[in-house]
Amino acid sequence: MRQWLDLGDVPTETIERLLRVAKELEARPIRQDLAGKVLGLIFLNPSVRTLASFQAGMAQLGGSSFVITPGQGSWAFETRRGVTMEGLEAEHVREGIPVLASYADALGVRCFPRGVDLAEDLSEPTLRALVNVCPKPYLNLESALSHPCQALADWKSLDDFGVPRSQGKFVLSWAKHPKALPLAVPASTLQMAAQRGMQVTVLRPEEFALPAQVMDKARTLAQVSGGSVHETSDREEAMQGAHVLYAKSWQAPRFYGQPAEESVVRAQYPDWCVDESWFAPALPDALFMHCLPVRRNVVVKDEILDGPRSRVLPQAANRLHAQKALLLEMLS
Amino acid sequence: MRQWLDLGDVPTETIERLLRVAKELEARPIRQDLAGKVLGLIFLNPSVRTLASFQAGMAQLGGSSFVITPGQGSWAFETRRGVTMEGLEAEHVREGIPVLASYADALGVRCFPRGVDLAEDLSEPTLRALVNVCPKPYLNLESALSHPCQALADWKSLDDFGVPRSQGKFVLSWAKHPKALPLAVPASTLQMAAQRGMQVTVLRPEEFALPAQVMDKARTLAQVSGGSVHETSDREEAMQGAHVLYAKSWQAPRFYGQPAEESVVRAQYPDWCVDESWFAPALPDALFMHCLPVRRNVVVKDEILDGPRSRVLPQAANRLHAQKALLLEMLS
Amino acid sequence: MRQWLDLGDVPTETIERLLRVAKELEARPIRQDLAGKVLGLIFLNPSVRTLASFQAGMAQLGGSSFVITPGQGSWAFETRRGVTMEGLEAEHVREGIPVLASYADALGVRCFPRGVDLAEDLSEPTLRALVNVCPKPYLNLESALSHPCQALADWKSLDDFGVPRSQGKFVLSWAKHPKALPLAVPASTLQMAAQRGMQVTVLRPEEFALPAQVMDKARTLAQVSGGSVHETSDREEAMQGAHVLYAKSWQAPRFYGQPAEESVVRAQYPDWCVDESWFAPALPDALFMHCLPVRRNVVVKDEILDGPRSRVLPQAANRLHAQKALLLEMLS
Repeated sequence: MRQWLDLGDVPTETIERLLRVAKELEARPIRQDLAGKVLGLIFLNPSVRTLASFQAGMAQLGGSSFVITPGQGSWAFETRRGVTMEGLEAEHVREGIPVLASYADALGVRCFPRGVDLAEDLSEPTLRALVNVCPKPYLNLESALSHPCQALADWKSLDDFGVPRSQGKFVLSWAKHPKALPLAVPASTLQMAAQRGMQVTVLRPEEFALPAQVMDKARTLAQVSGGSVHETSDREEAMQGAHVLYAKSWQAPRFYGQPAEESVVRAQYPDWCVDESWFAPALPDALFMHCLPVRRNVVVKDEILDGPRSRVLPQAANRLHAQKALLLEMLS
Repeated sequence: MRQWLDLGDVPTETIERLLRVAKELEARPIRQDLAGKVLGLIFLNPSVRTLASFQAGMAQLGGSSFVITPGQGSWAFETRRGVTMEGLEAEHVREGIPVLASYADALGVRCFPRGVDLAEDLSEPTLRALVNVCPKPYLNLESALSHPCQALADWKSLDDFGVPRSQGKFVLSWAKHPKALPLAVPASTLQMAAQRGMQVTVLRPEEFALPAQVMDKARTLAQVSGGSVHETSDREEAMQGAHVLYAKSWQAPRFYGQPAEESVVRAQYPDWCVDESWFAPALPDALFMHCLPVRRNVVVKDEILDGPRSRVLPQAANRLHAQKALLLEMLS
Repeated sequence: MRQWLDLGDVPTETIERLLRVAKELEARPIRQDLAGKVLGLIFLNPSVRTLASFQAGMAQLGGSSFVITPGQGSWAFETRRGVTMEGLEAEHVREGIPVLASYADALGVRCFPRGVDLAEDLSEPTLRALVNVCPKPYLNLESALSHPCQALADWKSLDDFGVPRSQGKFVLSWAKHPKALPLAVPASTLQMAAQRGMQVTVLRPEEFALPAQVMDKARTLAQVSGGSVHETSDREEAMQGAHVLYAKSWQAPRFYGQPAEESVVRAQYPDWCVDESWFAPALPDALFMHCLPVRRNVVVKDEILDGPRSRVLPQAANRLHAQKALLLEMLS
């Protein structure tokens, strides 16, 4: 595998192989398969889990890594073609990426969307600009629409937690947040659950309906896997018989690139903070998941995060195991 | 040892074992004991020596490390319980710490005090919040009241420099500084010297008397070790027959959390910059120590730092050896 | 070799030996020669290529490295002697450098000039202040007047590209840029080409003539190597029969430390953006080089960077191989 861009484009049998290897790595974490190998990690946007888990993962596999944070300790990268570079960006990805690739055996890159034009971001121009000029294996560490490392780890978590594939009922719910957040995690989570064959419901206020392109891809994946995809703004309906509630905030796609209007809309939903009452219609032992970082008592109440439903910690721990499987696949 | 929080809580025989190992590591620095092991380093506050010496130390022991600096390249961490997280902090330590711990074999964390309320900081709420949620070995890389890695290295330095334990006369002196600094180093230095069995004098203007809790712990340690603890604002008296002058600035505890008032008090002591005249009543070959970083010609004159009394460089070098002994103790 | 400060001070036979080793390392990149060795990397100024290539290089040679960025995540370093340190800088290099050196087997340091007084910067006071207090091997990762790692890699690139030494015609051209840039790369590039025995022309507007000290050192090197050094503001004359055009912007030395006046002068040369027309008088297959980062369509047009003349990517890739040879020379 030379490119790890979006989980929905990876055959399910490949995912299952990766997850088998991840399970083995969880049991026996220290290997030497990647001795002498170097992973370049480029964070055009901030990271905690991704940075730590990739650096730890490479080390545990016998390799090493370096971290570049353009714009913070080094110059920002320009991604657009044909620009006259008279602004803050002192380097173009057309140089920056192949050069850093020449010092590494693979690059992992995080690139958030510009957040100005929805149609533009849906076509992943930044991700494409990066991948097109990368001569080495490329790992998407989160782009405008995709966070495939999170999605792979989440699939493993669902397996670990014993959540059934077919007939498993998975609710992805919007939650409130002080900031307009990207669409990558909701899109990847939805599509992962659909590809896993689950009955997926997206629960969100009407204005937060995910873009048709995102929903359509999930439906296509569900058709293949035998799962299903629904969306609703009715919490009771969504949570009926749910195995898992996966909360995540995202910006209102209908007000994309209009931060003032968007924040007014977002402020209209103060009760979209997950608490125990949400679980009344769910299965008794329904679980709570979140990709982290999570704003306590904004997205979800302490009572949930500190209670028995929460699986956010083992969920995050699976980032390490899943990504190590991916590193073995791509680098050994 | 699962927690390395405060040197004063570590039995003296454990300290002596660590220092024996440190001495061996100084002579033969390269080992493979920690092959495959990962140390997570989390700096909620800035670091030079600690970051470099821990990364170098893990590498020399065959292991590796990663660095997370929340708030700089990643989101800031919230430490307080029950907060509605609508501010700058996007992640709570209740998630951040156990997650990062799941990618590592131990965590080292630096957390400065809030600096608002002295009684609160004396109870180390941030350190407790971090330790309580860390499922792996925890190394305190400096907290509100404690810098145990510095103190362990300083103990080794005193041994290396041939400063006697019992009858050794150790002066910890306040010094001037443009900023109101934390209490961790003075507290740890004082207690280390007392635990080592020395005759310790804290020399400071009256307003800079250390909190009773800090002094009391030092006195308790001195009772066990056979040392003694005094405090004075009389430089001549303090320096009489001294083996070591250890300079360090700290804020006036009586004006804690009142920066305007505190800086007025601090400005009243322009002559608390160590120079050769301070050493007149001391032993002829009395030494100068400081934990670094040190502001030249503010805390201490060039003539001292560049002269024969200064031991600040070998003192800092001992951070590496002492911490490697600690890493072997906690991780192998 | 204990100090790697300026390529022009390194005997040509040493350079040739380093380049032979670099070639071997390019073919067989993974070694264990530096197992257990630690390189400390200190960036007083930002870096992308240098940081990544040194971290990757140490890892590929079996060693490791740490990165300190004073002023960003840690305190800024003072370099001047005798200063009363009441400002932003909390640590002096007289402590910072030997302490970090005590945690490493060698230090690599980047220190840009102050940019206030040309005569002062020409005497490299910061570099001297650092080297003088470093008890371990010191690698200059760019100083006021010198970027010897870039120059060594560039020499290898010229060899790789088949550019002849004697009779090879090398044009170093000033180019436009929104910022007043340091003199290190033009000085090192010019002197490297002269030392390599080439016919070197510096093409620049009159106000951008390089300081006499820089030109004189290049002429001295050319005398030994059999090369030559010329300067002109006539593009046609400079490019006549050229094998290589190496573009780089730098500030006007005549207006050093006068940013307002300098930027007025710089704005007078809007057509100093390299495009295909520049190559009309050159050899048909003349090459384009640049040290990167490069501002597209400011310094050079897309048509050149994306066309067949550009060698900027293999040129940057050689940083890794050249520096690894240097690391073996200095650390094994």
